[in-house]
Amino acid sequence: MQSRNSLIVSQAVNRGIFTANLSPATKRISMMLGEEDEPQTPQLFTELDELILDNKEQLQWKETARWIEFEEKIEERAERWSKPHVTTLPLHSLFELRTCIERGTLLFDLEANNFKEILEIIVNNEIPTGNQKSVLKEKVMHILLRTHKHHIKTSRMQTMLDLLRGASYANKSASLNSNTTADFTNEISDKPLQEQLKNKFKKQIPEGAEVANVLVGEVNFLEKPFVAFVRLKQAMILGALTEVPLPTRFLFILLGPKTKTMAYHQIGRAIATLLTDELFHIVAFKAKLREDLLAGVDEFLDEVTVLPPGKWDPTLRIAPPKILPSPHKRKSMYSLGSKVHMYKGNQIQHEERYGSNLHVAEDLKRTGKLFGGLVNDIKRKAPWFASDFYDALNLQCLSAVLFIYLASVTNAITFGGILGDATDNMQGVLESFLGTAIAGTIFCLFAGQPLTVLGSTGPVLVFERLLYNISSDYQLDYLEFRLWIGIWTAFFCLVLVATDASYLIQYFTRFTEEGFCTLISFIFIHDAFQKMFNLAKNYPINSDFNIDHVTLDHCLCLPFETENVSSLFNETTETHFKLSTATYNTTPNLESVNWPSLTKQDCLKHGGQLVGQTCDYIPDITLISFILFFGTFVCSMSLKNFKTSRYFPFAVRKLISDFSIILSILIFCGVDILVGVDTPKLIVPSELKPTNPHRGWFVYPFGGNEWWMCLIAIAPALLVTILIFMDQQITALILNRKEHKLKKGAGFHLDLFWIALIMILTSFMGLPWYVSATVISLAHIDSLKMETAKSAPGVEPTFMGVREQRVTGLLVFILIGVSLCLAPILKYIPLPVLFGIFLYMGMSALSSVQFMDRLKLLLTPAKHQPDLIYLRHVPLRRVHLFTLLQILCLVLLWVLKSTVAAIIFPVMLLALVWVRKAMECIFSKHDLSWLDDTMPEKENKVLVDKKAEKAASNNECEDSEYLYLQKGCDINISVN
Amino acid sequence: MQSRNSLIVSQAVNRGIFTANLSPATKRISMMLGEEDEPQTPQLFTELDELILDNKEQLQWKETARWIEFEEKIEERAERWSKPHVTTLPLHSLFELRTCIERGTLLFDLEANNFKEILEIIVNNEIPTGNQKSVLKEKVMHILLRTHKHHIKTSRMQTMLDLLRGASYANKSASLNSNTTADFTNEISDKPLQEQLKNKFKKQIPEGAEVANVLVGEVNFLEKPFVAFVRLKQAMILGALTEVPLPTRFLFILLGPKTKTMAYHQIGRAIATLLTDELFHIVAFKAKLREDLLAGVDEFLDEVTVLPPGKWDPTLRIAPPKILPSPHKRKSMYSLGSKVHMYKGNQIQHEERYGSNLHVAEDLKRTGKLFGGLVNDIKRKAPWFASDFYDALNLQCLSAVLFIYLASVTNAITFGGILGDATDNMQGVLESFLGTAIAGTIFCLFAGQPLTVLGSTGPVLVFERLLYNISSDYQLDYLEFRLWIGIWTAFFCLVLVATDASYLIQYFTRFTEEGFCTLISFIFIHDAFQKMFNLAKNYPINSDFNIDHVTLDHCLCLPFETENVSSLFNETTETHFKLSTATYNTTPNLESVNWPSLTKQDCLKHGGQLVGQTCDYIPDITLISFILFFGTFVCSMSLKNFKTSRYFPFAVRKLISDFSIILSILIFCGVDILVGVDTPKLIVPSELKPTNPHRGWFVYPFGGNEWWMCLIAIAPALLVTILIFMDQQITALILNRKEHKLKKGAGFHLDLFWIALIMILTSFMGLPWYVSATVISLAHIDSLKMETAKSAPGVEPTFMGVREQRVTGLLVFILIGVSLCLAPILKYIPLPVLFGIFLYMGMSALSSVQFMDRLKLLLTPAKHQPDLIYLRHVPLRRVHLFTLLQILCLVLLWVLKSTVAAIIFPVMLLALVWVRKAMECIFSKHDLSWLDDTMPEKENKVLVDKKAEKAASNNECEDSEYLYLQKGCDINISVN
Repeated sequence: MQSRNSLIVSQAVNRGIFTANLSPATKRISMMLGEEDEPQTPQLFTELDELILDNKEQLQWKETARWIEFEEKIEERAERWSKPHVTTLPLHSLFELRTCIERGTLLFDLEANNFKEILEIIVNNEIPTGNQKSVLKEKVMHILLRTHKHHIKTSRMQTMLDLLRGASYANKSASLNSNTTADFTNEISDKPLQEQLKNKFKKQIPEGAEVANVLVGEVNFLEKPFVAFVRLKQAMILGALTEVPLPTRFLFILLGPKTKTMAYHQIGRAIATLLTDELFHIVAFKAKLREDLLAGVDEFLDEVTVLPPGKWDPTLRIAPPKILPSPHKRKSMYSLGSKVHMYKGNQIQHEERYGSNLHVAEDLKRTGKLFGGLVNDIKRKAPWFASDFYDALNLQCLSAVLFIYLASVTNAITFGGILGDATDNMQGVLESFLGTAIAGTIFCLFAGQPLTVLGSTGPVLVFERLLYNISSDYQLDYLEFRLWIGIWTAFFCLVLVATDASYLIQYFTRFTEEGFCTLISFIFIHDAFQKMFNLAKNYPINSDFNIDHVTLDHCLCLPFETENVSSLFNETTETHFKLSTATYNTTPNLESVNWPSLTKQDCLKHGGQLVGQTCDYIPDITLISFILFFGTFVCSMSLKNFKTSRYFPFAVRKLISDFSIILSILIFCGVDILVGVDTPKLIVPSELKPTNPHRGWFVYPFGGNEWWMCLIAIAPALLVTILIFMDQQITALILNRKEHKLKKGAGFHLDLFWIALIMILTSFMGLPWYVSATVISLAHIDSLKMETAKSAPGVEPTFMGVREQRVTGLLVFILIGVSLCLAPILKYIPLPVLFGIFLYMGMSALSSVQFMDRLKLLLTPAKHQPDLIYLRHVPLRRVHLFTLLQILCLVLLWVLKSTVAAIIFPVMLLALVWVRKAMECIFSKHDLSWLDDTMPEKENKVLVDKKAEKAASNNECEDSEYLYLQKGCDINISVN
Repeated sequence: MQSRNSLIVSQAVNRGIFTANLSPATKRISMMLGEEDEPQTPQLFTELDELILDNKEQLQWKETARWIEFEEKIEERAERWSKPHVTTLPLHSLFELRTCIERGTLLFDLEANNFKEILEIIVNNEIPTGNQKSVLKEKVMHILLRTHKHHIKTSRMQTMLDLLRGASYANKSASLNSNTTADFTNEISDKPLQEQLKNKFKKQIPEGAEVANVLVGEVNFLEKPFVAFVRLKQAMILGALTEVPLPTRFLFILLGPKTKTMAYHQIGRAIATLLTDELFHIVAFKAKLREDLLAGVDEFLDEVTVLPPGKWDPTLRIAPPKILPSPHKRKSMYSLGSKVHMYKGNQIQHEERYGSNLHVAEDLKRTGKLFGGLVNDIKRKAPWFASDFYDALNLQCLSAVLFIYLASVTNAITFGGILGDATDNMQGVLESFLGTAIAGTIFCLFAGQPLTVLGSTGPVLVFERLLYNISSDYQLDYLEFRLWIGIWTAFFCLVLVATDASYLIQYFTRFTEEGFCTLISFIFIHDAFQKMFNLAKNYPINSDFNIDHVTLDHCLCLPFETENVSSLFNETTETHFKLSTATYNTTPNLESVNWPSLTKQDCLKHGGQLVGQTCDYIPDITLISFILFFGTFVCSMSLKNFKTSRYFPFAVRKLISDFSIILSILIFCGVDILVGVDTPKLIVPSELKPTNPHRGWFVYPFGGNEWWMCLIAIAPALLVTILIFMDQQITALILNRKEHKLKKGAGFHLDLFWIALIMILTSFMGLPWYVSATVISLAHIDSLKMETAKSAPGVEPTFMGVREQRVTGLLVFILIGVSLCLAPILKYIPLPVLFGIFLYMGMSALSSVQFMDRLKLLLTPAKHQPDLIYLRHVPLRRVHLFTLLQILCLVLLWVLKSTVAAIIFPVMLLALVWVRKAMECIFSKHDLSWLDDTMPEKENKVLVDKKAEKAASNNECEDSEYLYLQKGCDINISVN
C-alpha cells in the first residue's frame, strides 16, 4: 500500500526539476486520450445526495449540491440554490478520494435492469458473503433504497401562492417539496415523480447529457467505509434517484461510520468535481482498470491550483471566471505527449489584437486592376444574395427591425432638426426622413455589408454648416453649390473605388479612429451647449423682476416719434406712464392705428416702438428649456444604464434600455406640455413638401451661381471626399472586426461605390448626404447576435455569429419612409429636448473611446488604477505621454476648426495618420502595439513582427495573468 | 526515498476516514507551536530575485516578486508593481519544493559576517570538495555575487519629470532604476545603495520585520540543482541584496540547469508563500532538523485549498479577500492537539449579531434601586472624565471638529429654516443656532456618551409642526403651551431615569429601528416635495404667455370701485386698457393717490385692486426653484458618492465627500445669484434677537393661556416623552454598538438625564428641543476612528477603536455659538436649496436601511439577487413576507400621521415593538434572528438560545461560505 501511495508524489517529483521523464500516469492518460476515433463522450450532470434525518426522524437522502460546469449547493435553511461557483476542495479530500478508489468496489460497464439490481450487485461485491454479513447487507440495502429529496425550483406563480399562504403557516417550519407521494415504505420510487418530470432545470442541462449520482452518508452500523464506483454499460433512468429524469451513467456510493460527516461530504464533492472535469470525465468513460481511474486522479492533482491557507478563507465561494482554460488545449497536451502549462490568455489576446487587422486585410488586397476590388467584392457577395433574404426568417429580426427603426428615426429627427437649424431649413426634418428612407433602402439592397445602417453623421453635419455659412457669406445658391460638390465628391469616390484605394484604411489605427471619434463627440457636446446658450440669449430672463413692482412693469407699443420723449423720462415709470397715455391721447392726428392694442410683431411692422422694462425679457422659457435639456440628457443616460441594474427581469431592462432615447423624448415632451410654456419647437411641414418653401424637390445644376462655381466646387469636394471616405471606412472597419464573426465577408469597395451613387441622387434632390452611422450599425449587429441557447449555471452563453441579411435594414428604411406622415406629432417636440439627446449622443460616444479611459488615468492615483491590459505592458509614463500627445492633436484640431481654416479640417483629420506614423520615433513598437494597433509597413514584415511578438509573449507568459475581477477585463470598441 | 515521499499522502490518508490517529508531522508541529513562552517571531518580508540577462548581455539578479501578506509581482514591460493578490501555486511546485528541502543544504542558525561569507559556507556545504569541483564553486560564487536589480517606485514628482523628459528619449527603451553606480565588476555592493535607503516602500513593512531572500535561476554549467536554505543566527543587512535595507534572516537559493525557468520560478514562489504563511513561518524560525521543515511543508499542504484545473484559469490573479482565517485559530488547533477545519465566518457573524445586544445589556441591567442606573453611569464615567480631555491631544481631532462643525451648522440651518417655516418663525434659524450651541455644550461636558452630537431631529420637527398647528387652531399661546409640555416631558424623562427604564431599549430591535427611521425619512422626503409644490402654487407660471402679446399684457393698480366695470370688459384688453386709463383720468375726485405708480403691496394697502393677465403670475421663480432643488439634491448626492470614485488621491476625495453638503449649498447659492431671480430666501435676523419680533428670550409660564392648559399639556408631554426616549435611545444604541469598540462604556441613563434638564432650559428660552442626531453622531465617531497605520499591500488596516473624548464636541458647539454672527451670510441661501438638502437627507437615510434592500429584492429576479447573508438562511418567500408586513405597518403609520390622529403617532411608533412581538407567531425564531435581532425574553433564555443557535451553526458550518465578491458582504447599519 505504501508503495502505491507514493506514486503521486514521486510522479510529481519525477516530472520536476530533478528528472525529466514522463510519469506512468501521464503515459496511461495519453494513451487513453489518444484513441481519437471514438465518439464524443456525453456531458455529465452530477448530483450529490447525502443521508439525513427528516422531520419524522427517518433516514432520507437529500440532494445537497449539483454540478454541470460549476457547483451549486443548497442553502439549507433558505431553501434555495446558491449562485453557481467554482468548487474549492481541501487537498485532503482528494487524497481520501484516491484511497477510496484504491480500496473500494469498482464496476465498469455494469449491466442491470433497475436501481435495486445495481445495488444488489454492488453490495454483494463490497461485502463478502457470510452469515453475520447478511444482516449488514440488508441494512445497507435498506439505507440505499431510502427516498431521495430534491430541491426543485417552483415557478414564480407558485412562489407567490406560497407567499400568500405563508402568513397562515404560523410557526410551523416550511416543508420542502419532499416526495410525500403516499409512499409508506419510504422507499425510492422506481419511476421519476411528477415534479421531477416537470422540473424546469432540465432546460439548462445540455442535450444528451447523462447523470452521475454521488451518494454519501454516515450510518451507525458500519465499522469501515463502504465504497463503490459504478459505470453502467447502458445509461438509464433510475427511478426517482435524480432531480431530473435523465439516464444515469455513473454511481458513486460512500457509506461510513459516524463522526466524519464533513469528511464524507468533502469526498462526495471531490468525486463530483472530478467527474465534472473534462479530462477525468473521458478517463471515467474509458477506464477499464482501477489503475486507469487512479491515473486520472493523479493527473487531475497535477493540474490543480493551490491557494495558501492563511491567505484565503476556504469557505469563500468563488464566482465563475469569465475566461476558462480551453479543454482542447488541455487534451492536446496529452496527444502531443508533452506537458506544458497553459497560458491561454495571452495568445487569445494577441489573436484578438492582431487578428482583426489581418482578417480585414484579406478583403482589402490591392488587385492592381481597375475596379478589381469592386469586382472581387461583387464576386464575394453575389453567392450570398439569396440567403441574405431567407436568413432573416427569425423572430429576432422583427425585434431588431423595431429597435433599429426607433434608433434611426430618432437620429433622423435629431440630425434633421439640427441640420434645419444650421441651414435655415434648407434641409430640415422632412428632408432628413425622405433622404434616410431612399438612401437606406438602396444601400441595404445592393451594398456589400447590408448590416451597415446609413444615417446622417456628425462630420458631414459640421461640413454642411460650414458650407451654408460660406454660401450665405458669399451669397451663393447653397443647394446648387452643394449639388456640384456632391457630384465631384461622388466622382472622386468612384475614382477611389476604381483604384482600390480602400486598402489604405489599414493605416487607420486606433489612434486615428479615436481622434476622429473624439473630435466628433466634442463637436456634438459643444454644439448642444452652444444651442442652449443661444436660446438663453434669445429668451433673456428678467433678473430685476420684483413681485412687488408687477404693477409698474409694462411693455407698451408707442408710435415712433415719441422716442426721444420717452427715453428722456423712462427713468421714473410714473411720469413715463403718464406721458405715454398722454401721448396716446394727444396724437389723434396719426393714422387710425390703435397702438396699445397692437401685438409686438404688428407694432414693429407698423414702425412703432416698444417701451418698458418687460419688453426685452421673456419669462420662463430659458429656464424650462434648461430643465428639458438636462432632464432629457440625464433621463436617457440613466435609462440606457438601466440594463446593467439588477431590478426586473433582463427582458424588461433590455426593453427599457433599448427604448431609452424615445422614452426620454416622450417623457420630456410630456413635461413640456404639462408646464405649458411656449418653448421653441421642431419645425416640420405638415405636407410632403420641402421644409423651406423657397426650394423644390429637384436642384438645377445651373442658374443660381456663376458657371465657374461648378469648377470651384472641386476644392470643397476633395475635402468632403476625405470626410466621407474616413467616416464610411472607419465604421466599416469596426463593423467587420473579427470579433463579430461575420461569415459573408465585407465589401469595402462595393459600399463606397454605392455611397457615391447615393450621393449623386441626394445632391440632386437637395437631401442630406449619407454615410454609415457607427453607433446605429453596431446596435444593429448587436440586436442580431446569435448565442448558444442552453447554458449550464455559471457558464456564459457562447457568441455564435450575427444573422447577416438584408431584410431588417430594408424594413427599417421602408418604415422610415412610411413615417413621413409623423409630421403632426413631431412638431410637439421641443428643441431643447433634441439638444439634450444630442448631448447624450456625444457623451455616450465619448465614453466608449479608450482615449477617455487614458484621460481618466491621468487623474487616478496609480493605486486605484483599473487593471487594464496595456498598463501591464507599457510603463505608466509612456501611457501618459501617449495620452498627452493625443490631447495636443485634438486641441490643435479644435483650434483649427474654430478659426478661418475650419474648412480644411478633413485634411487635418487625415493628417492624424501621419502623426501616428511619426509617433514611431518616440514610442517603441511594443508600446504602440499595446496602446494602438500596428500599422502595416510591408505585409511580410507585419507577419514577422507578429511572430516575434508571439514568441516573446510565450517567454513572458506569466504576464498574461489577469487580476480576477467580477467584471472581467473590458476591451473597449471605439465607436463614434 | 520512496518511503519518505509517501509520507505526505499516507499522512493525509491516515488522518482521513479510514483511520483516525494524528500523523507524525502534526505531532511535530504541535510540539513546536506548543512552546508558547518564546518571544514572538518577527514578521517577514520576502523578496524573489531571478537570474536574467541585462541589456549588456550580462547576468544579473532581478527582483520579480515580493510578499508581506500578499504577492506583488513586477509587470515586466510596464515597469510597475502589480496589484497585491493571493498567491496561486501549481500543486506541483509545492511537491518539488518539498524535494528541494529534502535534498538540499539546510543551515540553521548560521553565523557569518557578510553575504560573501554566507555564500562561501553554503557553496562548500553543497558542493563536495575536489579538484574539478573548485571551478564549479567559483562559477557558482560568481553567479551568486552578481548585482541585484530592484524596481523601486519613484515619487510622483520624479514620474512627472520622467514624463517630461520622455519625449526626448526617442526609440531608446526606458531603463530601469538599475544599480548603475560605477560598479564595474558588476558585483553586488556590500552596503545598501542610496535608492534602497530612500525606498518609501519601507513604510509599508511592519516594524521589526526581517527579510527572507529567495534567489532562483538557471545556469548552463550545472548538471543538477543547487539548493540551499539558510537561517541566520542573527538577522543582518546583506548589502544591496534586498529592496529595502532590512536585516535578512532567511536565504533560499536554487540554481539549476537550463530549460526549466518556469519551474524554478514557481518553486521560488512556493517557498516565498510558505515563508509568508503564519504557521510555516514559526516552524521556519524554530526548526532544528530537516524533518521539522518537512513537517511544516506537510502541514501547509494539508490545509491548502484546491481549485480544479478545468474550472479555473491558473493565470488569473485573485484580489485579497476581505475576510481572512484568523491565524490564532489555526495555531490553537495545534495547541489543542485536535484538527478541526476552520469555519470562522459563521461564528464571527453570530458574535456580531448577538454580541451587540449582549454587550449593551451589561450597561443596562436593572438595578431595582431609584436612580440606580444613573448612579452606576456616573460611577462608570467619572474615572474617565480627566482622560476625556487629554485623550483629545491629536491632530485627527482638529479635522473632526471642522467636519462635525460643518455638518452641525448645515443641520442647524436646514432644520432651523424648516422649523421657522413650520412655526411662522417662532423658532427660526437663529434660535436653532443658539439652542444647538447651548444644549450641545452642556451635553458634551456632562453626558455619559460625549461622542453623541445633539441636534434637531425629524420626529421632534414633525411634532413641533403639529403642535404649532394645534396652537393656532385653538388660538393658544404656542410658546407657553410648549413650555409646559417641555416641563412635563422633562419630568417624565426624569421618572424614566429614576426607574432605570432605559433597559427597555433592548426591545427595540432592528424592526423597530427601521420602522422609525423609514417613517422619518419618508416625512423628510414628503415635506421637501410638499414645500416645493407649495412654492410652485405661490409663484404660478403663466403658461399662456405669448411673446408676441407682450405689449398687451399688463397688471394695473386701479381704485376699488371700478371693479364691476373692468370685470365686465376685461375680455378684450384693448377696451380694458382704454377704460382703465379713462378711469384714471375721470376720477380726480379721489384722494391724491397716484394709482398706477403704486407697487403691488401699496396698491392692496390702499384698497386698490389689481387688474390684468400678469397680476396672478410670477415668472421664472418656480422654475429656478425646481432647478435649485433638484440641482442641490443631485449635487450633494454625487459629491457624497465621490469618495468611492477612483479619481484623485483618497485625501482629496474624502475632503470633497465630507464637505459635500456645504459645497452643494455654495454651488447652488452661486447659481441663484448668477441667474439673479428673486427666489425666496432664508429669513435670519441680523441681530441677536428672536427671529419673530413678537417673542422674547424668556417664556413666561403663565399669562398667555388659561391656567389649566398646564395640566392639559400632560397629554402631549407623554407623547413627546415617547418620541424623545425612542429617538435618543435608538441613536445611543447604534452609537454604543460593539463594532465601534468603545472602551469607556455607555451612559444611557445619564444621557437621558441631561436631555431632560436641557429640555427644561430650552423650553424656557423658547429654543428647539434637542436629542441625539444619529447621522452626525455616527459621522463624529467615524472621523475619530483609529486604525493601524502601517499595512502591507493588500491588507486592510485594522480598526483599533475610537478617540473617546469630550473636546471635539465641546469645540464644535462653541464654534456654532460663535457663528451666530453668520446671519448676514445665511440670508443669501435660497429656500429651495435647503429643501434640496432636506430631500438628500431623507434619501441618504433611507439608503442605509436594510428594509430598503429587502424592498429592492421584491423587484429583483432571484437570479440577480445579491448574495446577502440572510438570503442564505431564510427562504425567499419568508423574506418577502417580512418585508410586506413591514410595508403594511409603515402604510398604517403614514395614514395615521396624515389623519386627525396624527398627534398620537409616537404611540404608534412604540406599537411597533408589539407588532414585532406578534410576528413571532408567524415567523420562526431562526428566521427572525436573521431578518431582525432577537428580542430578550428572560435573560437566561437568550443565552440558552444563543448557545443552541451556535451549536446548530457548527453543524451546518458549510453554510457560512460567502460568495467571494470584490466588495465583500455588506452588513448594513441602520441609521436615521
